[in-house]
Amino acid sequence: MTDALTKAERDSDLAPLLANGWHMVEGRDAIHKQFVFRNFIEAFGFMTKVALWAEKWNHHPEWSNVYKTVEVTLTTHDAGGLSALDTKLGAKMDALAGG
Amino acid sequence: MTDALTKAERDSDLAPLLANGWHMVEGRDAIHKQFVFRNFIEAFGFMTKVALWAEKWNHHPEWSNVYKTVEVTLTTHDAGGLSALDTKLGAKMDALAGG
Repeated sequence: MTDALTKAERDSDLAPLLANGWHMVEGRDAIHKQFVFRNFIEAFGFMTKVALWAEKWNHHPEWSNVYKTVEVTLTTHDAGGLSALDTKLGAKMDALAGG
Repeated sequence: MTDALTKAERDSDLAPLLANGWHMVEGRDAIHKQFVFRNFIEAFGFMTKVALWAEKWNHHPEWSNVYKTVEVTLTTHDAGGLSALDTKLGAKMDALAGG
């Protein structure tokens, strides 16, 4: 069982993501972001980097890809909503997409 | 501009896919299949192999992944529906998923 984000963690760790292109998914305690790259190689290269971190942390995104666009939803089934794993993976994705 | 599948090609190249887990998408001239693997490593490994073929052939799937499941939709925007690129990529995916 993974702990859901506390109110303090939502302020400290979730708010920066929501200020950086992530938004709450309607009807779920989950966050979503659309990443747009230059082409498929860049988009899938991003996914490959994320996949290695996701497997390492044993926390996997719900995601889809159409050519240069990657749509990501993060939530933690064990926690019944957002957990620290989601904010950690979301921040990692932002770093990888920018790098 | 890519040519849409002819009636003869639908019989020879599309029918075998429809007999192997692919189905027509409602309201679109497109095919869909759900691939289920043992775990994320197998699922994303499959996606990585497909990605290389997709880029090589310059024909990319619409796809999504949640842990061990990969959902794929194939169609050709240039052709306004299914083309030989879709049946080729679909058959390649089946081969890669089985290997």
